[in-house]
Amino acid sequence: MTAAPSPLPEILIEPVVRAALAEDLGRAGDVTSLACIDADAIMKVQFVARQAGVVAGLDCARIAIVLMDPAATFEPFVADGDHVGAGAVLARVSGDARAILSAERVALNLLGRLCGIATLTAAYVKAVEGTHARITDTRKTTPGLRALEKYAVRCGGGLNHRFGLDDAILIKDNHVAARGGVGPALARAKAAAGHLTPVEVEVDSLAQLDEALPYAPDVIMLDNFAPDALVEAVRRAGGKVMLEASGGVSLQTVRAIAETGVDVISVGALTHSAPALDVGLDAA
Amino acid sequence: MTAAPSPLPEILIEPVVRAALAEDLGRAGDVTSLACIDADAIMKVQFVARQAGVVAGLDCARIAIVLMDPAATFEPFVADGDHVGAGAVLARVSGDARAILSAERVALNLLGRLCGIATLTAAYVKAVEGTHARITDTRKTTPGLRALEKYAVRCGGGLNHRFGLDDAILIKDNHVAARGGVGPALARAKAAAGHLTPVEVEVDSLAQLDEALPYAPDVIMLDNFAPDALVEAVRRAGGKVMLEASGGVSLQTVRAIAETGVDVISVGALTHSAPALDVGLDAA
Amino acid sequence: MTAAPSPLPEILIEPVVRAALAEDLGRAGDVTSLACIDADAIMKVQFVARQAGVVAGLDCARIAIVLMDPAATFEPFVADGDHVGAGAVLARVSGDARAILSAERVALNLLGRLCGIATLTAAYVKAVEGTHARITDTRKTTPGLRALEKYAVRCGGGLNHRFGLDDAILIKDNHVAARGGVGPALARAKAAAGHLTPVEVEVDSLAQLDEALPYAPDVIMLDNFAPDALVEAVRRAGGKVMLEASGGVSLQTVRAIAETGVDVISVGALTHSAPALDVGLDAA
Amino acid sequence: MTAAPSPLPEILIEPVVRAALAEDLGRAGDVTSLACIDADAIMKVQFVARQAGVVAGLDCARIAIVLMDPAATFEPFVADGDHVGAGAVLARVSGDARAILSAERVALNLLGRLCGIATLTAAYVKAVEGTHARITDTRKTTPGLRALEKYAVRCGGGLNHRFGLDDAILIKDNHVAARGGVGPALARAKAAAGHLTPVEVEVDSLAQLDEALPYAPDVIMLDNFAPDALVEAVRRAGGKVMLEASGGVSLQTVRAIAETGVDVISVGALTHSAPALDVGLDAA
Amino acid sequence: MTAAPSPLPEILIEPVVRAALAEDLGRAGDVTSLACIDADAIMKVQFVARQAGVVAGLDCARIAIVLMDPAATFEPFVADGDHVGAGAVLARVSGDARAILSAERVALNLLGRLCGIATLTAAYVKAVEGTHARITDTRKTTPGLRALEKYAVRCGGGLNHRFGLDDAILIKDNHVAARGGVGPALARAKAAAGHLTPVEVEVDSLAQLDEALPYAPDVIMLDNFAPDALVEAVRRAGGKVMLEASGGVSLQTVRAIAETGVDVISVGALTHSAPALDVGLDAA
Amino acid sequence: MTAAPSPLPEILIEPVVRAALAEDLGRAGDVTSLACIDADAIMKVQFVARQAGVVAGLDCARIAIVLMDPAATFEPFVADGDHVGAGAVLARVSGDARAILSAERVALNLLGRLCGIATLTAAYVKAVEGTHARITDTRKTTPGLRALEKYAVRCGGGLNHRFGLDDAILIKDNHVAARGGVGPALARAKAAAGHLTPVEVEVDSLAQLDEALPYAPDVIMLDNFAPDALVEAVRRAGGKVMLEASGGVSLQTVRAIAETGVDVISVGALTHSAPALDVGLDAA
Repeated sequence: MTAAPSPLPEILIEPVVRAALAEDLGRAGDVTSLACIDADAIMKVQFVARQAGVVAGLDCARIAIVLMDPAATFEPFVADGDHVGAGAVLARVSGDARAILSAERVALNLLGRLCGIATLTAAYVKAVEGTHARITDTRKTTPGLRALEKYAVRCGGGLNHRFGLDDAILIKDNHVAARGGVGPALARAKAAAGHLTPVEVEVDSLAQLDEALPYAPDVIMLDNFAPDALVEAVRRAGGKVMLEASGGVSLQTVRAIAETGVDVISVGALTHSAPALDVGLDAA
Repeated sequence: MTAAPSPLPEILIEPVVRAALAEDLGRAGDVTSLACIDADAIMKVQFVARQAGVVAGLDCARIAIVLMDPAATFEPFVADGDHVGAGAVLARVSGDARAILSAERVALNLLGRLCGIATLTAAYVKAVEGTHARITDTRKTTPGLRALEKYAVRCGGGLNHRFGLDDAILIKDNHVAARGGVGPALARAKAAAGHLTPVEVEVDSLAQLDEALPYAPDVIMLDNFAPDALVEAVRRAGGKVMLEASGGVSLQTVRAIAETGVDVISVGALTHSAPALDVGLDAA
Repeated sequence: MTAAPSPLPEILIEPVVRAALAEDLGRAGDVTSLACIDADAIMKVQFVARQAGVVAGLDCARIAIVLMDPAATFEPFVADGDHVGAGAVLARVSGDARAILSAERVALNLLGRLCGIATLTAAYVKAVEGTHARITDTRKTTPGLRALEKYAVRCGGGLNHRFGLDDAILIKDNHVAARGGVGPALARAKAAAGHLTPVEVEVDSLAQLDEALPYAPDVIMLDNFAPDALVEAVRRAGGKVMLEASGGVSLQTVRAIAETGVDVISVGALTHSAPALDVGLDAA
Repeated sequence: MTAAPSPLPEILIEPVVRAALAEDLGRAGDVTSLACIDADAIMKVQFVARQAGVVAGLDCARIAIVLMDPAATFEPFVADGDHVGAGAVLARVSGDARAILSAERVALNLLGRLCGIATLTAAYVKAVEGTHARITDTRKTTPGLRALEKYAVRCGGGLNHRFGLDDAILIKDNHVAARGGVGPALARAKAAAGHLTPVEVEVDSLAQLDEALPYAPDVIMLDNFAPDALVEAVRRAGGKVMLEASGGVSLQTVRAIAETGVDVISVGALTHSAPALDVGLDAA
Repeated sequence: MTAAPSPLPEILIEPVVRAALAEDLGRAGDVTSLACIDADAIMKVQFVARQAGVVAGLDCARIAIVLMDPAATFEPFVADGDHVGAGAVLARVSGDARAILSAERVALNLLGRLCGIATLTAAYVKAVEGTHARITDTRKTTPGLRALEKYAVRCGGGLNHRFGLDDAILIKDNHVAARGGVGPALARAKAAAGHLTPVEVEVDSLAQLDEALPYAPDVIMLDNFAPDALVEAVRRAGGKVMLEASGGVSLQTVRAIAETGVDVISVGALTHSAPALDVGLDAA
Repeated sequence: MTAAPSPLPEILIEPVVRAALAEDLGRAGDVTSLACIDADAIMKVQFVARQAGVVAGLDCARIAIVLMDPAATFEPFVADGDHVGAGAVLARVSGDARAILSAERVALNLLGRLCGIATLTAAYVKAVEGTHARITDTRKTTPGLRALEKYAVRCGGGLNHRFGLDDAILIKDNHVAARGGVGPALARAKAAAGHLTPVEVEVDSLAQLDEALPYAPDVIMLDNFAPDALVEAVRRAGGKVMLEASGGVSLQTVRAIAETGVDVISVGALTHSAPALDVGLDAA
């Protein structure tokens, strides 16, 4: 049994949903529902997954509904992180009809996107099942939605990489170039890092790996290494440092990469290219 | 020659970029560059498309750079809406090295997403080339980025559908159900609409189409019609109302839909499922 | 019986009221009530119209009260859009005395302004009663209050014109000059407009009207036309395009304008010069 | 010669103008100018008063223009506080044509409203010329614009009353009722007031005036006193406390009120019911 | 018995607490509690003063808890302004364990700071007990917390000085220098001040005091006067103007200053250098 | 020679300074300077340390000045992190006199607070000079100023602890209690932590230390250990895990703690109780 993914506090989700509603309502609100739906009409609807996938973002949907109608009820039938089949009812909603219709698109946009990320993540996780490797995201997220998208990765069984530029040092090619080598860059980073700031370095060759190992960074990222090179890297690291494979990872290649023995595989596509899961709102 | 797509005023773009930078910088900023790059280092880099595609969002990249270093220069080599090949240099940047590296991910996240949308849009536009049909987006956009994503659709040659719930009436199944038919719903909408509020109605059968036609809405959306039914709908409408096909549209099916003679084909995937274009920042 | 005016969602009103309260409370709050009113005092008061007029903005008053005292009750006796006589009680309020007194001015400022706009609008609407013409507002609204002021126009029986620069094309003299004529400007606009973007053009002579008619814009605005010229314009348009009269409209002149047969008469004064309705808060 | 009215720091004006532009630009910007005006077009225009009046708010107009085109020039020909005749050119502007047209309505809305307030204030000030009385505003301002509207009152030669609930104690009828009399309310207020918090009390009869005088408040407001009663109040106060007349003040009645010898006359209409001054933007 | 200090309306406190929570929660929330505490765990805790002091800020603590768990209960045992001994329980809290632990640090940071200010203020107030002098704060507050910190001063028995640059005129050395003397500066200020704007002037010698007295400012600040000079100043002022001593005030010197007969003693350290009171959150 | 402390990007500082200015300017701005200083007056002033200390926050002072007068010049004579003596000139400023006086208090409030923190940090750093221990801060910072205050700690030579609840796991007594022991809590945390999330645990006895050591957390915090116990803890840890001493640390006790061999000593007082450094703005 999988543990529930660490949720986001509602105080961090609400401003995103509120801004999304304001963006959609514009300056006159939902003119269609105001014209066609009676002011006192009540509606019972349900969120339905039209495709199989992994659930993420039920809180977003609930908050969108409740911000428009504080008296609405939202009854979830599944939990974030659950795998569901096509046709699964995710939640049932009852409340003011105008409010629900006004919130519908925002709820679906967030739910569809987050379920899409969770579903793609779960596909990668499944592809490496049985190996030692774990799937992780990157900072290639949608501006404004990083916390939510990284939460969706957790829902799909993935691990989170850095949340921003500030919570870990990650030395990349430009930093290496600026300092004249992996070693000097690592030395500088180690000296500057706070005692709770992890240090990771990206290397693009076994030679750079050898240069990095003596500095004992927390993680070494092997960028665009061929599987053979990954195997050799794992051998040279000897379990003394965490190894992360990155670059050119796809559902076709990820298993082979995982089988080289690396610890972590980072996949930008989880957040920058996951298709939305098709979720709809149907009469209940 | 295509006209340049209508740009967004910078005053609408800047807050999005500023928030994205704050989200990425967190509470301590780019600790890696601060550790590894000298305070007075200068850098020359270029944004490079690693895949062929359509450009959108150069302003976002420029603003990200300039917000971090007001003295940086940003020289574009292409314009939004241009089709470029793999390897194309989109823009050259020169400025404070720490600032550029701190802005890099935000610039690329926005640029990659918007180019991705423009590129997918252009593929749909090309697929219907020679027909009467135009490709349009939907409200299935990323919360917070609607204006930018709809701009990217324009860059790809697409048309914009409603920008929000407030700028056109779009009667959908729930509204029809609430009023007891397409006709009563249209009657209510026509009475309520301002003189500058367009009215569109979604129908899911030829019978509903017949019910809608006498009300002369601005647009009738034919939802999930088979090609045969679309042909018949075009015939019945007789050019007196704009017809929009929607539902089940893919790059495989769009040409056949276009050839039925509909005016507009709306494609949610343009914004909810476009993979990011792979854009990188390389040393110049 | 008039239908209730389309309401604004509370999520769009609340931030305006909240900001107004913060503006009034400053950095120390209502120092008078804190000094003179006991912390546990309860108060029963009522909003009273001191002049006859049309009601608009009851939600603003309610939200101001409730933001200061979430436990307060607010019982409305009339609805937005209602015509009331001098002395009419609009709503009764009961709750924490300090909170109510702190919210009073903000509630009255919004209520007075919105009732004032609704009342002036209703006067124009009444003046054209029995003609074909409808009264519409403009974008000459108070910065920050456009959605509320346009709602007040609806409460007075008026129609809303554009909500912003983005939801319709409105070609004015500068655009005509830039393109070298009404025709070329309309041609450009028609080509650029989305399929849901209405196109209106302002003309200042019958010659320009003739130039505009073949392009079939959604609306032609006849700017500062004398009544005779309006009659002729209506004749030339022949019912094929909506005609809007604008410029120099007052309560004295509006009837004559309406009787020319134009469809819409736009009146900037509805929002830029409506005197506030005198509303007070009295002991209940 | 009148001194220039105390200006507002730009840092307080800019957010109001920025929000007004965002409100008007919506999600797609000025679609008309984007369609009809070339991207590189330059424009020379001037702000012109179409009616005589008093100028206020030039900074708002300038900031609106410059926020849309930082390279635009804005050359004022008059200063805030100046009396100008119909047709007076207030400022000349040169810059990007699309930007100027996009900013036009916001600039005019603010300028028209603030000039309107300054002009009405000046009419009241002129009406009491030669008397001892000064004209002051109230807190009956537009939510969100208090600082600007009170500035406009200064431009018209008026004095500012409280800026909010927090910068002076003003005991009104409800406070008096809660404490059981003017005296007890004043006693409570005097004890609670900081040493820099002025204390004012509203009285509605000479008896209440007598009750207030021994407490030596900074100001006594005589609410809805007939001229005779005002004369008697002035006599009783004997110059030992500042007297403010309020209620039922109009341009017709203000002179008689002023001649009673009161120090200050407060006029809510200055801000809640001033018609906008007609200002336009013409080709230069 | 002391009256309760004037509270701040919750609408002014909540945004500060909300922003503080967002600052602490970052992009992933309280990862420790999410890992270690069960989702359904309930917790009973109490806020305990680990040092003797004066209470201020209970509302901040309550709001922090309730923003994280709207269903939590917060039962205060003391009130702001109360003097408590070491070990005193300030309030008991029961609710969702993760929520309480996530809010803990923000609650304690605000409570500790505000109690610290109230406690230091009370020490100064006690030091001058029996004299005529009152203790007041300055504008040397923490950016963003002025309203809260001035409230804490009131909780400690202190008086509030200006809340900002706008609610009183305070002529200091630079203003005097700019106008060429205390007299000309006062003349200018008196002419410019609104009728509800108090005027204070800072003087640094008895000669300047003599220059100021004829202008009858509301307050004269005696800056860095020796006790002898203060005595003489009090004599010269003869009770006709309020005198404020400032500069070089410490708990060691304040009594001697108070005994000179000045009305007010302002102490910047109340807000810029008060050590936090040690408050903790313990199992209940 | 010490390296310069890692600066904060200006984009993170500016909103804090801007909000502080708005808080101080209120609704009418600096009424004193507007009354007493001519509109075209220019001023040359300098920031002067009236006490010896360590500099931090020059950027805040510069931004405050420049936000009020974009044309002002700000010439620093020292850098953040420098130790200066009483009387040292920190920076010279020239510009619009009204603007500079309006910005003065905000600039000084931020500079005084941040220099105060840097100065106190430096005192602790000096006290442990020659030992292995480093001084670190806590999350006991001022709400809204965490990034700035942690930057000031770096300026004083200190190390930064967690920036928020999200960038490291820190297991405290409540978490231990919830899981029934240090071991189970660590097991849970290790399983939940991302690969870049450091794990720290607080222990309050040697027994708990022994329980923690096998889990190899990144850091073990020894809370309120007596020096003897710290020595024993260092012995037992054997250099295999970083040890942090916390609780009851003062300038009197810190050296003894440092000499026990712990790696890090955390001091809440650095940010919650540092007195402001006395900095003034004098004529240059």
